[in-house]
Amino acid sequence: MDTLQEKAINTIRFLSADGVQRANSGHPGLPMGAAAIAYTIWTRHLRFNPHNPKWFNRDRFVLSGGHGSMLLYSLLHLFGYDVSLDDLKKFRQIDSITPGHPEFGLTPGVEITTGPLGQGFANGVGMAVAETQLAAQYNRPGFDIIEHFVYAIVTDGDLMEGVASEAASFAGHQKLRKLIYLYDDNHITIDGSTDLAFTEDRKARFDAYGWHTLKVEDGNDVEKIDAAIKTAKNDPRPSLILCRTHIGYGLPTRQDTAKAHGEPPGAEELKGAKEKLKWPLEPNFFIPEDARKFFQGYVEIGRSLELAWEDKRTRYVKEFPNEAGELERRVKGALPEEWDKTLPDYPADQKGIATRVASGKAINTLAEVLPELIGGSADLAPSNNTWIQSSQAFQAEMPAGRNFHFGVREHGMAAIVNGMAVHGGLIPYGATFLVFSDYMRGAIRVAALSNIPSIWVFTHDSIGLGEDGPTHQPVEHIAALRAIPNLSVIRPCDANETVEAWKAAIQNRHNPTAILLTRQACPVLDRNQTSSANLLQRGAYVLKELGNNQPEIILIGSGSEVSLILNAGEELMARGISTRIVSFPSWDLFEKMDPEYKDTVFPKDIKARIAVEAGIGQGWEKYVGDSGKTICMQGFGASAPYQTLMTRFGFTVDNIVSSALQLLNK
Amino acid sequence: MDTLQEKAINTIRFLSADGVQRANSGHPGLPMGAAAIAYTIWTRHLRFNPHNPKWFNRDRFVLSGGHGSMLLYSLLHLFGYDVSLDDLKKFRQIDSITPGHPEFGLTPGVEITTGPLGQGFANGVGMAVAETQLAAQYNRPGFDIIEHFVYAIVTDGDLMEGVASEAASFAGHQKLRKLIYLYDDNHITIDGSTDLAFTEDRKARFDAYGWHTLKVEDGNDVEKIDAAIKTAKNDPRPSLILCRTHIGYGLPTRQDTAKAHGEPPGAEELKGAKEKLKWPLEPNFFIPEDARKFFQGYVEIGRSLELAWEDKRTRYVKEFPNEAGELERRVKGALPEEWDKTLPDYPADQKGIATRVASGKAINTLAEVLPELIGGSADLAPSNNTWIQSSQAFQAEMPAGRNFHFGVREHGMAAIVNGMAVHGGLIPYGATFLVFSDYMRGAIRVAALSNIPSIWVFTHDSIGLGEDGPTHQPVEHIAALRAIPNLSVIRPCDANETVEAWKAAIQNRHNPTAILLTRQACPVLDRNQTSSANLLQRGAYVLKELGNNQPEIILIGSGSEVSLILNAGEELMARGISTRIVSFPSWDLFEKMDPEYKDTVFPKDIKARIAVEAGIGQGWEKYVGDSGKTICMQGFGASAPYQTLMTRFGFTVDNIVSSALQLLNK
Repeated sequence: MDTLQEKAINTIRFLSADGVQRANSGHPGLPMGAAAIAYTIWTRHLRFNPHNPKWFNRDRFVLSGGHGSMLLYSLLHLFGYDVSLDDLKKFRQIDSITPGHPEFGLTPGVEITTGPLGQGFANGVGMAVAETQLAAQYNRPGFDIIEHFVYAIVTDGDLMEGVASEAASFAGHQKLRKLIYLYDDNHITIDGSTDLAFTEDRKARFDAYGWHTLKVEDGNDVEKIDAAIKTAKNDPRPSLILCRTHIGYGLPTRQDTAKAHGEPPGAEELKGAKEKLKWPLEPNFFIPEDARKFFQGYVEIGRSLELAWEDKRTRYVKEFPNEAGELERRVKGALPEEWDKTLPDYPADQKGIATRVASGKAINTLAEVLPELIGGSADLAPSNNTWIQSSQAFQAEMPAGRNFHFGVREHGMAAIVNGMAVHGGLIPYGATFLVFSDYMRGAIRVAALSNIPSIWVFTHDSIGLGEDGPTHQPVEHIAALRAIPNLSVIRPCDANETVEAWKAAIQNRHNPTAILLTRQACPVLDRNQTSSANLLQRGAYVLKELGNNQPEIILIGSGSEVSLILNAGEELMARGISTRIVSFPSWDLFEKMDPEYKDTVFPKDIKARIAVEAGIGQGWEKYVGDSGKTICMQGFGASAPYQTLMTRFGFTVDNIVSSALQLLNK
Repeated sequence: MDTLQEKAINTIRFLSADGVQRANSGHPGLPMGAAAIAYTIWTRHLRFNPHNPKWFNRDRFVLSGGHGSMLLYSLLHLFGYDVSLDDLKKFRQIDSITPGHPEFGLTPGVEITTGPLGQGFANGVGMAVAETQLAAQYNRPGFDIIEHFVYAIVTDGDLMEGVASEAASFAGHQKLRKLIYLYDDNHITIDGSTDLAFTEDRKARFDAYGWHTLKVEDGNDVEKIDAAIKTAKNDPRPSLILCRTHIGYGLPTRQDTAKAHGEPPGAEELKGAKEKLKWPLEPNFFIPEDARKFFQGYVEIGRSLELAWEDKRTRYVKEFPNEAGELERRVKGALPEEWDKTLPDYPADQKGIATRVASGKAINTLAEVLPELIGGSADLAPSNNTWIQSSQAFQAEMPAGRNFHFGVREHGMAAIVNGMAVHGGLIPYGATFLVFSDYMRGAIRVAALSNIPSIWVFTHDSIGLGEDGPTHQPVEHIAALRAIPNLSVIRPCDANETVEAWKAAIQNRHNPTAILLTRQACPVLDRNQTSSANLLQRGAYVLKELGNNQPEIILIGSGSEVSLILNAGEELMARGISTRIVSFPSWDLFEKMDPEYKDTVFPKDIKARIAVEAGIGQGWEKYVGDSGKTICMQGFGASAPYQTLMTRFGFTVDNIVSSALQLLNK
């Protein structure tokens, strides 16, 4: 074996181990065991430019086992990214760019936030989907302008998680040949040997999904890993390379034990490992000069790779100026001018339409002007109204299709959509019933934490879905989604607010948005008689003042309950009670407004307030205050026609009116 | 083919179709396609007593595709359960016992709530675990007192869901031979053909999990299905029988189409199906007399089965009175006398211990007196402190073991635990980091909705976990769990409150409990100087009055923040401000108290209140009121040693004191 190569691998290995030891916290096992795998991917296959981590056509590298973060930070430092040795020494310290688990947006070269197991695996699938779709749309003969692989190191934990199983089945179905995953098969989890809980035949399982699988018996054998990757690159299926590794490789007593996983090795063990692998004991964070030079060579290699691509792109621009212009805009994340001008403006309609239907129309209108808008449903397309009529389904034989059949795989869908969004060039959405947002929260959270602008379309947003009953009726979900920091949650009240919700979601390129929609019809409000729907962008707004005096009471609602409070307000007005009607589709948008605006909507001196929402009341106290009340769900729903349920659970004009009168002591 | 058999199958088929048609809502496709499968299981294999649906040694039947509920209701009616024809006619109507999806506890004979796909599949695994464990503990030579199978009908959707993949891998590892699942392989999902998204080799996948798999080419062929089940019963592995069926079997134009899945067939199609299968067009809900008699025969068969078992049990009671007594108590769900008397009482200790450690001690103490207490962790046993030291791991070769290695499969774990709980005879718990409760919500919700007393142990409950960083730091999760109706959420502040939290969880045999625990040490409060920890049972209580006057301010906290507010209160007292300290471990327990008690904790005239909790503030407004404030997380955490984070995010005595002074204008 090449001595320089050995040195280079041990440099990765011990930089990582020293980082963990210095932080006195972290996970040495994965980096020490998988150093040779990472070395092989990065030196022999991965195409990247350290000085431009955002080069669009780079190969993507995902460390799905994010707990092995020191491995990634060591690689980024050595290969010339803007991650200094000092950064490595600040591993897991406040305000460093080397946190406990890799965070997208924080550290140059980190492609995606990982740590919650299974997510990275599925995100990579989304990245490969994005590559495939963009290639199908923009490549031209002789111009493979989009052409890259997605590599990942995946772990036992990833392979056990359901989200990864879902994504793997989808990837196999879609024949995503650009996916090359290397499985750090070290036989150890936190509880001990994988024999304790994970004895399935992983290779056979991935074969069953339609993957190409290979085994490398020695995860330190660079040539064998290299050969496997070469084979994988030429296979028409996604590839899983199972590499037998040894967690904490080199540690005298902890190698191949669970203790190597998540504890600093300790001075003694680390010394033993260095001795065993003939590594200098001092200094820590040692990088041999020849290894340093070797790694630095990749800066030039990277520059050349991007330059060659730039050259191709320049010729592409000349040959295909329209495509090139559009692609450039998409890659930038810029929206075309007047993109929102063709969105419909609905006239008043008492019969109304379901907001999910209005959402479907918005998607289809937007899809005409935004080729980057793509997405689908977890096997509920007809119910979620998410199908783009002008396009086909994305399938292996139709990679330009913009509609996705994600299957009954909500969590996988959500993580795949995140991967598509983070890849760039796309505005992806995923859809299901609101109640099943529960299945997706692992992925929704990663999007929120990482400022990934995925869009979630959640229909059937309350007991208003009717007969399917409490298993399918969300009651806690509006509150539970609002609880996630940095997630925009919008529940529009009618067709026009739905259009505005979509505008907000499209404009919002910095964090995810969830749009909550009804199954049942909602009257389209008469905007000549009420405020404009575009005030949705402020989160909450005075929809209408009923009566001629200073309002005695404020009725507040979101979604399907807004038309109810409007009717209740009319009745209160008829009884001589001036009433303010507030449509409140989004708490987070409202909280972004300045205090002056907030006070105009909710003046401090109007203390009689009632919030009406067909979900639990948690948190509404903030807006109704000590003197107010809520008309909300107290528990789970029931199975019956929806009008019956609305009456049963108090969502009626009569109940709102009598509650208001009670509150006002009238 | 037997004419009576054909009639019986068509009776099931058309009762179901008529039910959906009459409700004008529901899913006819599964019942019509899988009627023969259900018939074969119920008439030839399932051991049950319709007049005692709770007979402990019955076989369990799970309809994992809960949308096919009319199939189950038809079966229950025909086989003599307390489900009348009138009940069938009230399908999906308010207050009926035949809701849109089967609900455990509502309808006699419904073993588990299903509808959210994948859950039933995994619940069945839990039931088989329970059977295996109880059999290992209580059966004696010649006395197989616990000996039953778990049958399920599972669907494409179930097989696509990650939760089922996780449970399947676990079941294969555990060689749960009592599991016999029949897969309604109808090639159709809501989006259309399974070719659109689900082309993996399902048989090979289950082979890889270590399952025994069989194919039945014609899902209407009773003899073939019967033969397959017979083979399955004799195999040492869990079995999946893939039955090729036809969704909406008989419908003239809708059979084998997605339209058969979730819409009433319509009069015309239903008429066509009846003609095609030579079924009388009138009356609806027709049950031929000979078929009725045939089904009624199972009442007597069931009685005999239970009597034979009762006979065996009587002899078992004589031979093994201790075992029999204990088993009987467990089956009843009664707790032994003085079960909580050995729980520790911790002396004051400023250095303190992590509440996860106190929880581990509570589990081990309780395990001595409660043999029904069993559980485990999703590969975090050493971190969650959930290991019962006096027992082994549950494994195929050690089925009496009480510790579970669930693997990195949080969602599967949660649904398996639900299945164990609903089986009876056990008090099961599942554990992971609080942040990964996100992965489990689909199952947590089923437990809450169905009054299943599963216990969830969630450690690492805030930024207090430190260096692992924001991917692992829950901030929204306390609020998001509190949002779930009927879930008890308890966040104890010290070792003694942790003991009380466990008492509450064990006593609570009617709904699930989540216990939220710290990674970091929390001082053990001096209960001679403060109120008794057993006041935790009231949800919130006055921990201490500081100062001699009527309190000017109330400081409120939960978990690790309680010792902080206590210290802050001391400082306020030193400044002459009388301060009330309220420990508030559980909102739901507090909300169960009467208004008088609530007013004693939070008197209306003490308006200066501060709630301190290292999670987002959502909902705390209810308790601090318009004049109060919250010291909570505003967004995600960060990666650093935990003391650094506590300071960074304002969880310090100084910040609480200065906030209090500001609030009091001092």
